[in-house]
Amino acid sequence: MDRSELLKLLYSVKSGEVTPEWVTEKLKTAPFEDLGFAKVDHHRALRKGVGEVIFGQSKTHEQILGIVKAMVKSGASDIIVTKLSAEAAEVISKEFELIYHPLPLFGIVNPDSSKQKYGSVVVVSGGTSDMPVAEEAALTAETLGSKVTRVYDAGVAGLHRLLAHLDEFSSARAIVAVAGMEGALASVVGGLAECPVIAVPTSVGYGASFGGISALLSMLNSCANGVGVVNIDNGFGAGYLAHIINKTGEVV
Amino acid sequence: MDRSELLKLLYSVKSGEVTPEWVTEKLKTAPFEDLGFAKVDHHRALRKGVGEVIFGQSKTHEQILGIVKAMVKSGASDIIVTKLSAEAAEVISKEFELIYHPLPLFGIVNPDSSKQKYGSVVVVSGGTSDMPVAEEAALTAETLGSKVTRVYDAGVAGLHRLLAHLDEFSSARAIVAVAGMEGALASVVGGLAECPVIAVPTSVGYGASFGGISALLSMLNSCANGVGVVNIDNGFGAGYLAHIINKTGEVV
Amino acid sequence: MDRSELLKLLYSVKSGEVTPEWVTEKLKTAPFEDLGFAKVDHHRALRKGVGEVIFGQSKTHEQILGIVKAMVKSGASDIIVTKLSAEAAEVISKEFELIYHPLPLFGIVNPDSSKQKYGSVVVVSGGTSDMPVAEEAALTAETLGSKVTRVYDAGVAGLHRLLAHLDEFSSARAIVAVAGMEGALASVVGGLAECPVIAVPTSVGYGASFGGISALLSMLNSCANGVGVVNIDNGFGAGYLAHIINKTGEVV
Amino acid sequence: MDRSELLKLLYSVKSGEVTPEWVTEKLKTAPFEDLGFAKVDHHRALRKGVGEVIFGQSKTHEQILGIVKAMVKSGASDIIVTKLSAEAAEVISKEFELIYHPLPLFGIVNPDSSKQKYGSVVVVSGGTSDMPVAEEAALTAETLGSKVTRVYDAGVAGLHRLLAHLDEFSSARAIVAVAGMEGALASVVGGLAECPVIAVPTSVGYGASFGGISALLSMLNSCANGVGVVNIDNGFGAGYLAHIINKTGEVV
Amino acid sequence: MDRSELLKLLYSVKSGEVTPEWVTEKLKTAPFEDLGFAKVDHHRALRKGVGEVIFGQSKTHEQILGIVKAMVKSGASDIIVTKLSAEAAEVISKEFELIYHPLPLFGIVNPDSSKQKYGSVVVVSGGTSDMPVAEEAALTAETLGSKVTRVYDAGVAGLHRLLAHLDEFSSARAIVAVAGMEGALASVVGGLAECPVIAVPTSVGYGASFGGISALLSMLNSCANGVGVVNIDNGFGAGYLAHIINKTGEVV
Amino acid sequence: MDRSELLKLLYSVKSGEVTPEWVTEKLKTAPFEDLGFAKVDHHRALRKGVGEVIFGQSKTHEQILGIVKAMVKSGASDIIVTKLSAEAAEVISKEFELIYHPLPLFGIVNPDSSKQKYGSVVVVSGGTSDMPVAEEAALTAETLGSKVTRVYDAGVAGLHRLLAHLDEFSSARAIVAVAGMEGALASVVGGLAECPVIAVPTSVGYGASFGGISALLSMLNSCANGVGVVNIDNGFGAGYLAHIINKTGEVV
Amino acid sequence: MDRSELLKLLYSVKSGEVTPEWVTEKLKTAPFEDLGFAKVDHHRALRKGVGEVIFGQSKTHEQILGIVKAMVKSGASDIIVTKLSAEAAEVISKEFELIYHPLPLFGIVNPDSSKQKYGSVVVVSGGTSDMPVAEEAALTAETLGSKVTRVYDAGVAGLHRLLAHLDEFSSARAIVAVAGMEGALASVVGGLAECPVIAVPTSVGYGASFGGISALLSMLNSCANGVGVVNIDNGFGAGYLAHIINKTGEVV
Amino acid sequence: MDRSELLKLLYSVKSGEVTPEWVTEKLKTAPFEDLGFAKVDHHRALRKGVGEVIFGQSKTHEQILGIVKAMVKSGASDIIVTKLSAEAAEVISKEFELIYHPLPLFGIVNPDSSKQKYGSVVVVSGGTSDMPVAEEAALTAETLGSKVTRVYDAGVAGLHRLLAHLDEFSSARAIVAVAGMEGALASVVGGLAECPVIAVPTSVGYGASFGGISALLSMLNSCANGVGVVNIDNGFGAGYLAHIINKTGEVV
Repeated sequence: MDRSELLKLLYSVKSGEVTPEWVTEKLKTAPFEDLGFAKVDHHRALRKGVGEVIFGQSKTHEQILGIVKAMVKSGASDIIVTKLSAEAAEVISKEFELIYHPLPLFGIVNPDSSKQKYGSVVVVSGGTSDMPVAEEAALTAETLGSKVTRVYDAGVAGLHRLLAHLDEFSSARAIVAVAGMEGALASVVGGLAECPVIAVPTSVGYGASFGGISALLSMLNSCANGVGVVNIDNGFGAGYLAHIINKTGEVV
Repeated sequence: MDRSELLKLLYSVKSGEVTPEWVTEKLKTAPFEDLGFAKVDHHRALRKGVGEVIFGQSKTHEQILGIVKAMVKSGASDIIVTKLSAEAAEVISKEFELIYHPLPLFGIVNPDSSKQKYGSVVVVSGGTSDMPVAEEAALTAETLGSKVTRVYDAGVAGLHRLLAHLDEFSSARAIVAVAGMEGALASVVGGLAECPVIAVPTSVGYGASFGGISALLSMLNSCANGVGVVNIDNGFGAGYLAHIINKTGEVV
Repeated sequence: MDRSELLKLLYSVKSGEVTPEWVTEKLKTAPFEDLGFAKVDHHRALRKGVGEVIFGQSKTHEQILGIVKAMVKSGASDIIVTKLSAEAAEVISKEFELIYHPLPLFGIVNPDSSKQKYGSVVVVSGGTSDMPVAEEAALTAETLGSKVTRVYDAGVAGLHRLLAHLDEFSSARAIVAVAGMEGALASVVGGLAECPVIAVPTSVGYGASFGGISALLSMLNSCANGVGVVNIDNGFGAGYLAHIINKTGEVV
Repeated sequence: MDRSELLKLLYSVKSGEVTPEWVTEKLKTAPFEDLGFAKVDHHRALRKGVGEVIFGQSKTHEQILGIVKAMVKSGASDIIVTKLSAEAAEVISKEFELIYHPLPLFGIVNPDSSKQKYGSVVVVSGGTSDMPVAEEAALTAETLGSKVTRVYDAGVAGLHRLLAHLDEFSSARAIVAVAGMEGALASVVGGLAECPVIAVPTSVGYGASFGGISALLSMLNSCANGVGVVNIDNGFGAGYLAHIINKTGEVV
Repeated sequence: MDRSELLKLLYSVKSGEVTPEWVTEKLKTAPFEDLGFAKVDHHRALRKGVGEVIFGQSKTHEQILGIVKAMVKSGASDIIVTKLSAEAAEVISKEFELIYHPLPLFGIVNPDSSKQKYGSVVVVSGGTSDMPVAEEAALTAETLGSKVTRVYDAGVAGLHRLLAHLDEFSSARAIVAVAGMEGALASVVGGLAECPVIAVPTSVGYGASFGGISALLSMLNSCANGVGVVNIDNGFGAGYLAHIINKTGEVV
Repeated sequence: MDRSELLKLLYSVKSGEVTPEWVTEKLKTAPFEDLGFAKVDHHRALRKGVGEVIFGQSKTHEQILGIVKAMVKSGASDIIVTKLSAEAAEVISKEFELIYHPLPLFGIVNPDSSKQKYGSVVVVSGGTSDMPVAEEAALTAETLGSKVTRVYDAGVAGLHRLLAHLDEFSSARAIVAVAGMEGALASVVGGLAECPVIAVPTSVGYGASFGGISALLSMLNSCANGVGVVNIDNGFGAGYLAHIINKTGEVV
Repeated sequence: MDRSELLKLLYSVKSGEVTPEWVTEKLKTAPFEDLGFAKVDHHRALRKGVGEVIFGQSKTHEQILGIVKAMVKSGASDIIVTKLSAEAAEVISKEFELIYHPLPLFGIVNPDSSKQKYGSVVVVSGGTSDMPVAEEAALTAETLGSKVTRVYDAGVAGLHRLLAHLDEFSSARAIVAVAGMEGALASVVGGLAECPVIAVPTSVGYGASFGGISALLSMLNSCANGVGVVNIDNGFGAGYLAHIINKTGEVV
Repeated sequence: MDRSELLKLLYSVKSGEVTPEWVTEKLKTAPFEDLGFAKVDHHRALRKGVGEVIFGQSKTHEQILGIVKAMVKSGASDIIVTKLSAEAAEVISKEFELIYHPLPLFGIVNPDSSKQKYGSVVVVSGGTSDMPVAEEAALTAETLGSKVTRVYDAGVAGLHRLLAHLDEFSSARAIVAVAGMEGALASVVGGLAECPVIAVPTSVGYGASFGGISALLSMLNSCANGVGVVNIDNGFGAGYLAHIINKTGEVV
């Protein structure tokens, strides 16, 4: 509910169209639907510019399906479901059109293939094992509308692999840098690129990588400017942030 | 790259030996001046779109002055010096024009008042004591060219103070959210705004705030989308990142 | 204190040797039954105002059953068993009346449906996945005698969902705020409510949520006043504390 | 602004008394006064039942004085200033009546000696060096209106010192347990008392006490029920919470 | 090899009985037997006063059996095997006499029932779930020769259960205090007893107990004197230490 | 327990009302003097076998002096004051006989030179900088009555320095091993000695020694048996524990 | 660098356009083959002196097989695959000659038995359970070309076991010291040896060993000189580093 | 004392030249001199190949002077004193020839200018503020006999600065990489160089650099092979280790 909607509402009160009591009630319940176990936020696209996303990890198949149903009923397309298990994907795909990517556990319900992709987001990752997180970022940005270029297995210990992609880096509006272990990728890419870099530490590694803490700290301490960090393994968050930065550069 | 190398390069262009494009590329990847204690990167503005910044914290007055001199000689203006002590500021101001902000320890050498500010960056902070970090962010973005709106002392425990600024939040291209203690500001602002939010944890607090770790973790775990985090107290980094996001939205 | 000791004590009262007051005091400080693997504290209700609760997590079915038997024999009702596995629940339900809630693994042996609920405790939670802990808190307070209102899936990233329940917050005697990830819920609710808020961090989340540490620190650093924190996932402890605060407000 | 006030406002719109635009604006600015460096929240007493408190630690003398002035002008009394340095206290005492406690750095501006104290809060502490934090808790609860009993230097290594106060514990409506080092006090007191116990870890100690972390963890893991924990050294927060619990028990 | 043995060896050189080369070699290999995967230390009883103990956790059945064989062959009895799985126990019991305790995973090979127990060690534990660690401590001290008294399920939240054993505490030569969660037991027992207290934190608990860290820190910070701490869950180490303290008090 | 209570108690013994045994028991559980800021425990020697010790660190000169006065008045000698600053030492020495050791900040008030030292405690330390903590341990054990041998600057990187003291190790009843940095001393000494070893980690070191955490963890994980650990820098605690172990071996 | 690029490069040499030296340099900085999921670095042996190694842990059987194929095709032998599961080993052994060590999960594809081993690397480990990591180090150094001596089960608590190998230590060019728990082995060996010592902490242990952190910190704080540390359980890294140190000493 | 010395000693016993008692004593005391506060190890050069080094940090001027005197008397030159304060340096320089470097607090007593430097060690550092640690490493290696090349202010965010030194990296026998903040330098240099890389994390930085922990973890997790890590700020240790690796490559 934005400012103009509020004004409209208040004018309805003034005109006697609605009672003040009704407005008070309306203000309390308007923009979401209560499913009991979840409150679906239909007006989110209006408020945040992007439709609601379903974080699938700790939800039962029934809960996910219920939310999907409510969203589809309200006309949503390109509904992202992250951390979607293969089993839950099967349940959903019986009732709805679903594109499912098993590696990053990523589902898109009611995909809208007509949507034009725009701008340029680059997703670069350090090692083969960082790929699931990198793909979650890439698919998120793509589904939301960004053109995405992938540069994988380009760790800093073999700099030449990374330097081979200087062109992609310099034409990007936003770069997502995904790396585990020592996370040096963010600093090196940050030093090479002009655009914002979203760094994603991954929990890949062993010993003193401490489930991603080492990469996280490394990225937070990046000596390169223009680097923002998201949570460990949060490919979705990075893809989302890269997308809205990319969107900022879109002339409308 | 010394002067003779540069001349040689330019003569090659003149003779048609190499294309101007090739030289532009060349200049982007190898230019710095070695002062012995520091390597000044004169072509950084070309490569990163922003001139080099002097991190003043662990440098002597002489070292800072030396770098400033080298940069001014090469024609730089609006040179940012962060963590600039009052004493070092005095030393610099004897030889150069300097605008100095004592609270955030922020200096601008050779300020360029003619530069047009553009776009919209909002800096919002939780408490009075977060102001030095917030100001470092605001001054950085401003000096680099962004229009900045400040919303200070707007912590989440008094939500109405924050909600009063919904208009500013909705028209921003990037928001910097600065908060210590529990760092909930980032999530609440992230839930209200459509644009990217750069979260800066501050070391303000006591006990289990652990010098900013509590706020840092809170911000990394933000349940709102579109939030990127920088290091504890890194106002400069946040202002820089917000600025280049803001710049992305500038039609050129 | 065995049966003969109790008898002896009561004979001393009869004979006038000791006063009834003295015995009441005596009973308050030394009464338990030793089952070998556990010491059942029958007079706990007298001393603490609430009967002993069985923490089921690290006990065998036989141990839980043994303690339940001893308590039922001594006349207890509404016996709470937390972290009660479905298997252990089945074992108990063969011998005793048991209400079992599978989600929060919560059992009530010898339930007393006649007990009047009083006052007002609100349990508010941030996400669908915080529900097991929230339910443990809600069921605990209810079983002990409090009227409980549940407000679930009301995270701070969608403030309007939370603001819709201002009425419930303002009429509560105690609020339990359950949240994982960044735990900002406690501060926002603490800023809106007048009554004590018991914050429960949950281990829900991934990456830098560190099994609840992020939410725990966030809650301990809450900038709102009137917030007390319990251990990660300790729904029982929060429900218990909320109940005894609620009871404080009961005119007797 | 509570629900009835909102209704009243909307009726004014309906009646044409005020314009919808005015109301939108009103909703944004009504309940606080902007001093530039701070937003004073005059309606806090209405909303939270207790007037705003000034956290003095990271504020300049001028900032504290400015906030005090604004509050006194709006009629406030018994204004608590925590972490008030002796120097700042002197500055304030030149313009306002101030009771100052140097040990806990606690100030009360415009003290209201006529206010009746009610109920019963006990503050118990482990060692001599925990006294500043304990006193902050005790003075906070007292200033807000609670009757407070102090039991100091009663650590668990000398149980008899603690057991000597069983009477005070059993008649309290809320107990604040303040301890550093191993923080066992909270569990022992929690096992003896029927009412809620607010545990405050202190940063007193050395080595593996880690500035209060040891005591904090110990208190969070208390095996006694009815224990809520606040931040390390947060005497104010504990006193506040104890007071509003005490208030819950007051018949009005 | 003690000092007298060394002297004897050197006199043999002097007398020409053995060559210097032989002694150099002897010094290198004498006091242990190399099984390839392990070096069995037959002279340990001489040097440390207690025979070698087999830490079974990360060894294969074959390795454990091999070490047992080598020790039995050299005449050892009462051989302790800790963390002995039921499967490994079965393997051993086919070839050797074995007393096996399944709860603490504790085995005694070639038990010597004729050995006289002496002195007094008390093992006290906080909760039912601390029993495996407590039993490991108790069985260790017993097997090594100490008389052991067990006081289980005597947590500090029910002080009366603990105070009921003051007599045992005052007559002990060493007490082992086993507790998880907040570990307050060590301080309370340490305050009541005159003899050394060996504190064993256990990994029992959840949330902020952090696998025993909370109890460990609590015990290290004990405000009671005379408390030494061993590793988390190290029942064996505590029983061993308690035994050699008990032995110190034995008149020989 | 004040003077009149004591008198009353003694009159009851005289009259035969209670037995002398009962009074001895009674005196063991409830005797202290309340100075307001501290409760002095005069009968501690009776209960714990050692008189109360004053932990000087967080106490004012006046508080220390007050406690000393109360103890001297009740006839105490050899009163240990740890962490006693030079200034506080001067204040005390004006009114009482005081032996002061400036390095370990250790004071002995009313020293009793006639007391016979017995048994054998060895204090071994790793480096020159561990000496203050080692001396605190040594002086504590000595003052309490133990004979103490010092072996300083005997780190494991120069094993021969350590092996030179095998004789002292083998004749000791208890060894205190003091070391910072990697803390390996405890394991090596523990492997060489037959008696209990009390390990004291020190905060000496830099970088990843983390103020003693590295040494602490190393000592807790010691692969040698018979090692108990005390808090970082807790020389007093180690000396105390070593003394009461030494005392256990004294025939009385 | 694909085939056509290589051809083009060689033609330029042929035509005299570039010198062979230039090409050698060129080949050193940019050669890899992109398999989509991995970029195989065929010229690594040239650049780093050692061929690429396959870290098998987070790769599928197909990915490992694909990389092996690409490497074998380019003529590689003695290809090391670390963390190779038995299942993946079976898959590979169907197509290639493979030596597989199940304990350290170590595979060598296309083994080259003709290669001469040189120099001297010693691998010493503390306990039986450190053997898998120790073997990974030993096999790595051996496969790369070093002569390796193994000294296992030589913990510091039984110093004589360690001292028996002084000869091996003094003739080594590099020593790998592998230990879990308190990690004291590195300091003791470091104090005895003249050559570089590579310390490998292992995750062996329980409680406060914290998955190898205790050993890691201990080794970083080693009071012996000449000790470098690698990641927890990183046997490969230690063997690699020891090998290239050993190689440094080889006269060529 | 090496093996041949031991044999010689034993032959002396055989020949009756010395008594066995004398040898036992000799074995205990031979190789060091006891100054009371320190044991000077004169035979260290023999045993470790490098003379003893004085760690000046926690020693008094007198202690340092005393050790220097004892070493000079025994004929030592090029005595390194690390962490030598300017004041202590002045004290020493009054009695001995001293070269003092104030930035890294590094002193060389009795410098031997005739010593030939050999081989090649490169010290590379990330920023201006890492210079003191880098210089400690460089001076250590130089004083011990290595030729040292310094490459300072070459952080990874400006890769071109680093790539400019590929020649130095490829001809080095050992590289010391010194960096604070995110510590990515070690991985990038490790990927470019063939020789061993000794990584030194520095405590330079703020916020989540946590006094060097971030850089330390980053370096331990380096994805480049051939990297060993030393303690935070341990320039001496790195220089020492680099030197003995360099020495390994010296033909003798």
